[in-house]
Amino acid sequence: MNSTLVRELFSLIDALPIVDIHTHVDWRTGTAKNIGEVLSYHYYTELTNSADFQEVKLPYTDPKALTKAILPKLSLISNTVQYDWLMTISREFLSLDPADWQPENWEAIYDHSAAIMDRAEWCSELIDQCNLVRVFLTNQYDETFDGMDTSFYTPCLRTEPFVIYMDQPAERERMAAYLGREVRRPADVVAAIDKTFERFLDAGMGYAAMSIPVNWRTFAVSDEDAQRLLDKTVAGTAWDAQDCEAWGAYSMCLLADACRKYKKPFHLMIGVNRGVYAQGVPGGTDLFDAVNSMRGYDYLLNTYPDVRFPTAVLSDTTGGELTAAAWIRHNVYPSGHWWYSNHPTEIARDIRRRIDAVPACKLIGYFSDAYYLEFILPKFRMFKFELAVALAERMERSLIHPNMETFAFDDALVLAEDMLINNPLRIVGLDEDY
Amino acid sequence: MNSTLVRELFSLIDALPIVDIHTHVDWRTGTAKNIGEVLSYHYYTELTNSADFQEVKLPYTDPKALTKAILPKLSLISNTVQYDWLMTISREFLSLDPADWQPENWEAIYDHSAAIMDRAEWCSELIDQCNLVRVFLTNQYDETFDGMDTSFYTPCLRTEPFVIYMDQPAERERMAAYLGREVRRPADVVAAIDKTFERFLDAGMGYAAMSIPVNWRTFAVSDEDAQRLLDKTVAGTAWDAQDCEAWGAYSMCLLADACRKYKKPFHLMIGVNRGVYAQGVPGGTDLFDAVNSMRGYDYLLNTYPDVRFPTAVLSDTTGGELTAAAWIRHNVYPSGHWWYSNHPTEIARDIRRRIDAVPACKLIGYFSDAYYLEFILPKFRMFKFELAVALAERMERSLIHPNMETFAFDDALVLAEDMLINNPLRIVGLDEDY
Amino acid sequence: MNSTLVRELFSLIDALPIVDIHTHVDWRTGTAKNIGEVLSYHYYTELTNSADFQEVKLPYTDPKALTKAILPKLSLISNTVQYDWLMTISREFLSLDPADWQPENWEAIYDHSAAIMDRAEWCSELIDQCNLVRVFLTNQYDETFDGMDTSFYTPCLRTEPFVIYMDQPAERERMAAYLGREVRRPADVVAAIDKTFERFLDAGMGYAAMSIPVNWRTFAVSDEDAQRLLDKTVAGTAWDAQDCEAWGAYSMCLLADACRKYKKPFHLMIGVNRGVYAQGVPGGTDLFDAVNSMRGYDYLLNTYPDVRFPTAVLSDTTGGELTAAAWIRHNVYPSGHWWYSNHPTEIARDIRRRIDAVPACKLIGYFSDAYYLEFILPKFRMFKFELAVALAERMERSLIHPNMETFAFDDALVLAEDMLINNPLRIVGLDEDY
Repeated sequence: MNSTLVRELFSLIDALPIVDIHTHVDWRTGTAKNIGEVLSYHYYTELTNSADFQEVKLPYTDPKALTKAILPKLSLISNTVQYDWLMTISREFLSLDPADWQPENWEAIYDHSAAIMDRAEWCSELIDQCNLVRVFLTNQYDETFDGMDTSFYTPCLRTEPFVIYMDQPAERERMAAYLGREVRRPADVVAAIDKTFERFLDAGMGYAAMSIPVNWRTFAVSDEDAQRLLDKTVAGTAWDAQDCEAWGAYSMCLLADACRKYKKPFHLMIGVNRGVYAQGVPGGTDLFDAVNSMRGYDYLLNTYPDVRFPTAVLSDTTGGELTAAAWIRHNVYPSGHWWYSNHPTEIARDIRRRIDAVPACKLIGYFSDAYYLEFILPKFRMFKFELAVALAERMERSLIHPNMETFAFDDALVLAEDMLINNPLRIVGLDEDY
Repeated sequence: MNSTLVRELFSLIDALPIVDIHTHVDWRTGTAKNIGEVLSYHYYTELTNSADFQEVKLPYTDPKALTKAILPKLSLISNTVQYDWLMTISREFLSLDPADWQPENWEAIYDHSAAIMDRAEWCSELIDQCNLVRVFLTNQYDETFDGMDTSFYTPCLRTEPFVIYMDQPAERERMAAYLGREVRRPADVVAAIDKTFERFLDAGMGYAAMSIPVNWRTFAVSDEDAQRLLDKTVAGTAWDAQDCEAWGAYSMCLLADACRKYKKPFHLMIGVNRGVYAQGVPGGTDLFDAVNSMRGYDYLLNTYPDVRFPTAVLSDTTGGELTAAAWIRHNVYPSGHWWYSNHPTEIARDIRRRIDAVPACKLIGYFSDAYYLEFILPKFRMFKFELAVALAERMERSLIHPNMETFAFDDALVLAEDMLINNPLRIVGLDEDY
Repeated sequence: MNSTLVRELFSLIDALPIVDIHTHVDWRTGTAKNIGEVLSYHYYTELTNSADFQEVKLPYTDPKALTKAILPKLSLISNTVQYDWLMTISREFLSLDPADWQPENWEAIYDHSAAIMDRAEWCSELIDQCNLVRVFLTNQYDETFDGMDTSFYTPCLRTEPFVIYMDQPAERERMAAYLGREVRRPADVVAAIDKTFERFLDAGMGYAAMSIPVNWRTFAVSDEDAQRLLDKTVAGTAWDAQDCEAWGAYSMCLLADACRKYKKPFHLMIGVNRGVYAQGVPGGTDLFDAVNSMRGYDYLLNTYPDVRFPTAVLSDTTGGELTAAAWIRHNVYPSGHWWYSNHPTEIARDIRRRIDAVPACKLIGYFSDAYYLEFILPKFRMFKFELAVALAERMERSLIHPNMETFAFDDALVLAEDMLINNPLRIVGLDEDY
């Protein structure tokens, strides 16, 4: 590693404004109110649960008590990148040195954090400090956006209720209340989706998104078969695995139809196993499966050539397949580094192979997946550092590589800006300057 | 990266003559006639299709029009290794600087290229310039080799017609015409294979080869079952998936029988999904599957201990399995870096783990898979650079590694020459000097 | 690579005493008696078999003849890490320079080795020279430990007989002889397990362990179903695949029950395909499958939250899944780098991602899997070198990384000692100083 070059590249890449195309931020609040809320992010509860398991549940809903409970355990996870994010938050936003994070300081840290973060100005101060220019959200179909700052936030539709939860009576009732009539026919689902897209478009919609179970399959399902499935679940008969698969394939196409109609992308997040760890903390019970393929998406991707599919994958074993899919499929865009693949070792590999083989204009560099705006900066810095290392290597290689033209400092910066800002905005269809 | 050492190693490795054990070169022409033919290579059509999709088909069969159509899109793929290959062709063979590749220059580039490449002497000039000493081909069973320069070209049999297409009436008719009698019995297939091997041997045959679908299985199938399958397809009844699998396993053994009988290797190319991308360009519709294992080859590899199986894999997820198979199985030889795994990131990893764990005498370093002789040099240079980086690292490690003896500059060169020339020739059975 | 820093780090890490939590050492002898026994380790027989296959079987049971047979072939595998281990043995223990390993010297090498190794003092000399402080074993349930030095050796129970071989009459007879009554009911199996754990505990038991086939599944099986399976096999009816799977899941829980009852860990070694290479040497016929997932362990891991599961995986494709499992599951501990993943390329990747994402206190750095004590030093050095490289990188990154606090030389040494000594001893429950 050429430290001097990496540092120079990083500092310029770090100076770019941040466009974050996928978060779970709550636009009503944006930031956390204190360090206890920061620590409630599942990474900290799950890692301390993993390092030092206790039968007694952590006080998840009491930020102050949670701070007291977790702080003594943080030293157990000080090697992790997640701890590094926390220390960046501490230094950059709270002016607290990592050495201050001693168990006996828990209350002082909490109070200090609240003094800074629990102020009306905090959110806008943080946005300025981090140079955040646009943040995409994760929203339920029945969420309303009154009062949301659409010049900063972009709502994105979470589609699982239409696809995965349709056999749950409570979900259908919620949807009926939303739609203003019972959900009995595929046309009712289409109407609910249309209503949703139209409402979201009014608020500056980004895209539809779905976090998808492993080995998902898409294929043609007729309206008649879909009607039969709805009838069955409405009648109270549980769907079997085949029914779930058929409805999943059918409803995913309904959503792709809407993406086509309203010219919005469909962001695929591939390969999660939900709720597999019985002793997990809230948000910390999911894993993935190394045995997972994008093969099941052939039908969807082929049937909707006019829909853009930014795609993130959870397993390192799908990274090569995503690279190849984005290499030849015009409507697949590799998007960021998701969750269990969101750490330096996996990021480093995937950055390199994507730049090797996928047209640069298709690369969506990164998204933070953050729950509070505070996490965006440290997560982007983690990515930007790996990107700087990869670009520095590329510069050095180009000087002696028999097949490469010069890849100069400015070329590296152009590529970084494309991956981090221009591509995400263009691919998602927000043709705006920042 | 020790740039000085890498450069020194590379320059000596680059000076080696080139033996290319797998290409799709047409021996009647060898080289392209103009840059439009070069650009017709599916990498360029598929990457520009991927970067800038258009409903209108590219003029694939009109090299000049294709040049005009693709050239404006090349800037979109300038980050890819495939673009690097093209620029090497431009600099090395056409004396055109990459900066000259502006859309408005398309006709001048085309004309200039034709003036150089569309000459009778071009092919031999290129062969000399690149120091190509032997190029293996991909040939159909009914291809004839009259006039082929067997001192330079080595024919290799593509076996899919016997294995995968046997249920297609047109393929059986073609085979009947070739054999001089109807193909009705397993013995007829054997006769066609024997005739083919004998004809190929007369032309200096290299090996039999097959590009094999994902999750292929080999197992014992009786002649009676094979006869039943032939009867069924001849009678016009379509084979189901099980039939296809059984015939595949059976006929693959017929080919292995011939490899045994004629003492020729069987080159396996594992893990392709054909025709999965509906909007793809010709040659750009195939992908692979991350879920793929070599387990299905156990029967074949165990049953033919006296047949050599050079083996290439398409998915990065099979790379570890291939390394382990070559480590213990005496008749498996890891061969090159194929297609979607043929870029620096995957090559770098596979080079290192193969050198870690597989006896060096079994390593077939690289093949180009080229469609025109022009691509051999840039592709080999890509590999040779990664090899030089890996060998330089090994040299540096050996100086301080507690378990390694000195791995000196000359050791690195010996290993490179073995991987690139001596092993491929010996494993394939061409015991010749170059 | 910062060679100076790596060398400094390595020399201090290398000076640590060695705790080796998994070997196949025979405590009655410990060391080999001559170089022929060293060469009988399957790595040498399998690699030379792979590099230079011969129909005639090697003289496996005659160390001197084996030395003569294998020595001329060693040059064929001189690139491998396994050869590097051998040369370390040669230099460090036999004071033989690698250059001495010429085929014509075979007898001199053999005699020289026997003169050193076939002495009563050799084992304790070697232990001192390598600074071995504790070595875990692999033991059969009916093995006795009279005379074993429990201050140095820790017995570990190999559980396959209870899980995989229960349908073999010979295994049931052996177990009946051990138990003193027929094995007819699940309670008999429990009794045999209890007797075993109690005997092993008397000898300072480490843990139960199992080398587990690919795509193993765990799930609830009733005692009644287990009784039915026992009845079936006792009656002489072969188990089908489903029966084997059910007994496997059932009996694995019996063993986990015992681990819970006796407060001992259950070491999982995941993903082997046994006996797949027909021409293999003894111990060299097994491979793995790239298509393998830890998904099948959900039931076991969830049902026994109070049992620790150190876990090793065979395929590189399971490495990411193991990292994620250890990241969130409190009772999964990534353990070493097993067999086909036990070479520098895979180790390097797995070290980095584990340190990125798994709490450091959960990392079991390495085990040797050695058959003779002589192999422990070279194997640990291989790992320690990769660890030193990774730690040196981490130090250099921390100096310029925007998210990392200083990771200093002393921090690196603390992490290394935790991974190599403190964690393994604590996780396995041996709370001892060394």
